[in-house]
Amino acid sequence: MLPQRLTMITLGVSNIARSASFYEALGFRPAEFDSPDVRFFDMNGVVLGLYGHDALAKDATVEPQGQGFRGVALALNLANEQAVDDALAFAEDCGAEIKKPAEKVFWGGYSGYFADPDGRLWEVAFNPHSPLDENGRMTLPPPAAQ
Amino acid sequence: MLPQRLTMITLGVSNIARSASFYEALGFRPAEFDSPDVRFFDMNGVVLGLYGHDALAKDATVEPQGQGFRGVALALNLANEQAVDDALAFAEDCGAEIKKPAEKVFWGGYSGYFADPDGRLWEVAFNPHSPLDENGRMTLPPPAAQ
Repeated sequence: MLPQRLTMITLGVSNIARSASFYEALGFRPAEFDSPDVRFFDMNGVVLGLYGHDALAKDATVEPQGQGFRGVALALNLANEQAVDDALAFAEDCGAEIKKPAEKVFWGGYSGYFADPDGRLWEVAFNPHSPLDENGRMTLPPPAAQ
Repeated sequence: MLPQRLTMITLGVSNIARSASFYEALGFRPAEFDSPDVRFFDMNGVVLGLYGHDALAKDATVEPQGQGFRGVALALNLANEQAVDDALAFAEDCGAEIKKPAEKVFWGGYSGYFADPDGRLWEVAFNPHSPLDENGRMTLPPPAAQ
């Protein structure tokens, strides 16, 4: 059995300085770390890492070639619809591409998407079914009884 | 400014039941949720979502085509090297493909990689520079003073 834990998500990016500037403009402050080859952001329960795309592939000993949809979305949940609109507008001011303006969505929430400089998708969402806890983390129903 | 927060990471997968079975075999218990189209796992500070690959693209209004390296790695940090070896062996028993057996790595830690049924990379690591806190989360140096 593995502990039910996700410690870090690392994005392989084409230009670390560019990506770091973008995320810092959004308001994320990186950990002080003495290397130009990596950035780490404490994201309130999980770490976001930025690392070179090819270096990440090499570390995992996989081929670096890839294109198109990455099949991954990161989500930043906020407390209400206005906060979602404001966040997307701010991200656009920071150079994000708005992939989908926020709208009411089928699952009962309100969300939109922006893309970072490498096209990574971030959903910005208000989810009335999963209120944020006092630490700003998403609450889920418990697992089914076994 | 956006709050420095990452609420959820959603993986777009080709077969939700297959992926859910894999992650449950690893030991992750999904939140009880009455839909066959999505799974949510509380990952100790961030939520891991499983959703259909094409449905995720559609939700973000992007084209679903994509192939090759996804440029993303998820990491599960553990307390020592033996725990890393044990976790990789267990993941392999659960059907994971071992992409890289654990070894000492250049940054001073010990890590290996497995891939889930869609080829998503998970790094399993021991990082002596970033000990896990009492909640099992990675500790980082603080941001630089501004």
